[in-house]
Amino acid sequence: MTKGTTLIRGGWVIPMTNRAVYDGGAVLMKDGVIGAVFQKGDELPVADEVVDATGCVVMPGLVNTHCHSPMSLFRGLADDMPLDSWLNDHIFPAEAAHINPTTVRAGALLSCVEMLLSGTTTVCDGYFYEDEVAEAVMEVGMRAVLGHGVIDFPAPGVPDPSENVAIAEAFVERWKNRWSLITPSIFCHTPHTCSEKTIARAKEACRRLGVLFQIHIAETEDDVQRMKEDRGITPYQLLDDLQVLDESTLLIHNVWMNDGDMALMARHGTTASHNPGSNTKLASGVCPASALMDQGIHVGLGTDGAASNNNLDLFNEMQTTAKLHKAYSLDPAAMDAWTVLEMATIEGAKAIGLGGQIGSLLPGKRGDITIVDMNKPHLTPVYNPASHLVYATTGADVRDVFVDGKLVVKEGNLLSLDVQAVMDEVSRIAKKIE
Amino acid sequence: MTKGTTLIRGGWVIPMTNRAVYDGGAVLMKDGVIGAVFQKGDELPVADEVVDATGCVVMPGLVNTHCHSPMSLFRGLADDMPLDSWLNDHIFPAEAAHINPTTVRAGALLSCVEMLLSGTTTVCDGYFYEDEVAEAVMEVGMRAVLGHGVIDFPAPGVPDPSENVAIAEAFVERWKNRWSLITPSIFCHTPHTCSEKTIARAKEACRRLGVLFQIHIAETEDDVQRMKEDRGITPYQLLDDLQVLDESTLLIHNVWMNDGDMALMARHGTTASHNPGSNTKLASGVCPASALMDQGIHVGLGTDGAASNNNLDLFNEMQTTAKLHKAYSLDPAAMDAWTVLEMATIEGAKAIGLGGQIGSLLPGKRGDITIVDMNKPHLTPVYNPASHLVYATTGADVRDVFVDGKLVVKEGNLLSLDVQAVMDEVSRIAKKIE
Repeated sequence: MTKGTTLIRGGWVIPMTNRAVYDGGAVLMKDGVIGAVFQKGDELPVADEVVDATGCVVMPGLVNTHCHSPMSLFRGLADDMPLDSWLNDHIFPAEAAHINPTTVRAGALLSCVEMLLSGTTTVCDGYFYEDEVAEAVMEVGMRAVLGHGVIDFPAPGVPDPSENVAIAEAFVERWKNRWSLITPSIFCHTPHTCSEKTIARAKEACRRLGVLFQIHIAETEDDVQRMKEDRGITPYQLLDDLQVLDESTLLIHNVWMNDGDMALMARHGTTASHNPGSNTKLASGVCPASALMDQGIHVGLGTDGAASNNNLDLFNEMQTTAKLHKAYSLDPAAMDAWTVLEMATIEGAKAIGLGGQIGSLLPGKRGDITIVDMNKPHLTPVYNPASHLVYATTGADVRDVFVDGKLVVKEGNLLSLDVQAVMDEVSRIAKKIE
Repeated sequence: MTKGTTLIRGGWVIPMTNRAVYDGGAVLMKDGVIGAVFQKGDELPVADEVVDATGCVVMPGLVNTHCHSPMSLFRGLADDMPLDSWLNDHIFPAEAAHINPTTVRAGALLSCVEMLLSGTTTVCDGYFYEDEVAEAVMEVGMRAVLGHGVIDFPAPGVPDPSENVAIAEAFVERWKNRWSLITPSIFCHTPHTCSEKTIARAKEACRRLGVLFQIHIAETEDDVQRMKEDRGITPYQLLDDLQVLDESTLLIHNVWMNDGDMALMARHGTTASHNPGSNTKLASGVCPASALMDQGIHVGLGTDGAASNNNLDLFNEMQTTAKLHKAYSLDPAAMDAWTVLEMATIEGAKAIGLGGQIGSLLPGKRGDITIVDMNKPHLTPVYNPASHLVYATTGADVRDVFVDGKLVVKEGNLLSLDVQAVMDEVSRIAKKIE
């Protein structure tokens, strides 16, 4: 916990507790927690540290609801090819040959660096050797929900699939109370790569341990078709039959779903991660995110891994989200800037079970704050800062980032570690992969 | 013209004369012209200036085939609303009240600054008071095709529409041989805001003066429907009837078109500007760009103005292009990185009539070069620089930019003018607009 008080003043404060912009507002943090949000003219308290955010937006740190952080190792290794070939001829063989604790740590560190520098303070991750991801997250100093992978095939660190749930459970137990910024979780791969028994056991373990259950679902039309042909039901119906759908289950992708599937999610309070960058790049399709939100479902944004995006910049993801849904619906009022900002902050936080701690600048929440410099040619003039955040900002405009009240990015530079060394290590590993 | 020789060495040279990357290549410029491209191991000449591009991509400057550069004045003024309301309730009134030579100059300067800093060396523009845009382009030092606007309503600087073509013609004559980096043009607004007579006269003037004719076409479904209802033909058939379709006509948007329209364009060698950022944000739809290119039509990328995008970053536009077309076709191999890079460089150059001068690093072409720094977390590792340029790079990664052999951006800083002053002037104007 960061001791003392920090006052950030002078910018456009966008607390995401409502859809308001406080021009000339301020935010007070105390001992790592949001203390108060001030509007122009309010009397400001004296603080130990004062940060001048004139010309900047001050907003909650962004929340990335889906990533495979070690996969930055494979960024750009294979593009522009059918999903089957991408996965079976390139990604799976690369994983089999090159994924080990050392490479996972290196890739996860790089992804965390990229995310923090572009204003993301929390990531919900899923992979194997997830202990190494946790170590990387601690080293760099960001907040994370970390899901240990479960799949019914031999996997990195899990050579015997019969132990997959037990290994994931042990991961959760190791990390449950280890570091306040890390919340462990279990991540089942998909309903067609995990058996019904595996899924049910994994969810049962999550319930017992009180943690989030994550699973990819309905990413491609083929995923859904096969399930219908094999069992006569949708993947959502399968999860419902297995009693997996509840408020602590995060469903990822949700591209090919019907009204009944949405109703199931809504009824159980199940949450969703929308990954438009990855879903468009892999030509999977478009998640009906607006319809999900209309049903009251919490929908967050996710970048997915850097092998299928190929960047982890949530500002980029916000722009993709807004534009893609407008084009698909032929409605320019669809998926407006505020809706997208909520997906990237408070709705994302709720989707991964951290709605009470982060996602908005509500007094009492943790001090995760991103400061965006609007004094740039491509962000001039400023009529509506919310619009700029979605349609014109990139991660490169992020100036400062606080996590849990601690300054981790200052004037575009990461304070916690040597970024060049992190890049060099991944480049060194990549030379063996290509 | 810049005198002397400059050697750029040590990076990944992507000349766009083919689909090759020369790792450890080099480029020689002499007197503002590309002199030679070298591969690793080639003996390099001695040069007056040597630029170290280790860890960088060296590529042709990007070509933005459609912009209304003064409209950065209205960036973010109105979003997330139906096109009619956007145009009639916000943009047209703002233009009527605030567009004058001073504001046009200020907005154009800001857009040129944004484009150069993000690696765009050539813009094809269309607006009113286009002399002021030309002055801005000269001041900042970029290459441009500048179309004076023609519309059959009173317009900024053209209060009497009966003089619209004459005023545009006079603009072309003033700028035809004034400065080598500026190529004048005439820009008719649309087939429904210009009469048949106006369009025919404008194109006739373009033919006589030997310059490019530009026109927005088939941007919305309604544009095409109205034309069909009123005249029983498509806008493309109208332009064909008016003998407007030839190799020096650039058609902009091309969202709602049929096979016959494409065949007309292909037969006449007419070129296209594809504006996916604007077309998605305004929910106009998606141009069938792949089908156009399959017919041999030159298709360039355009950002459109900053009021409908809301940024002028062609790297962003490339990513949008690749991902959008994959999602629409459900084919991940569609619109691959090389195709998109060609659209943003050589195909764009051909589309605006400058294919012989720019768009690739072919010896004899002008020295327009963009250097992109790949030593960034989000661009690590590098397996395939072409993939990174499309899927992970933003304009903020541009390090150096040469226009006509002259260094105009160095290490991310514009050398030709005071960027802060340009931003301040637009912000000052914007205070009166909001």
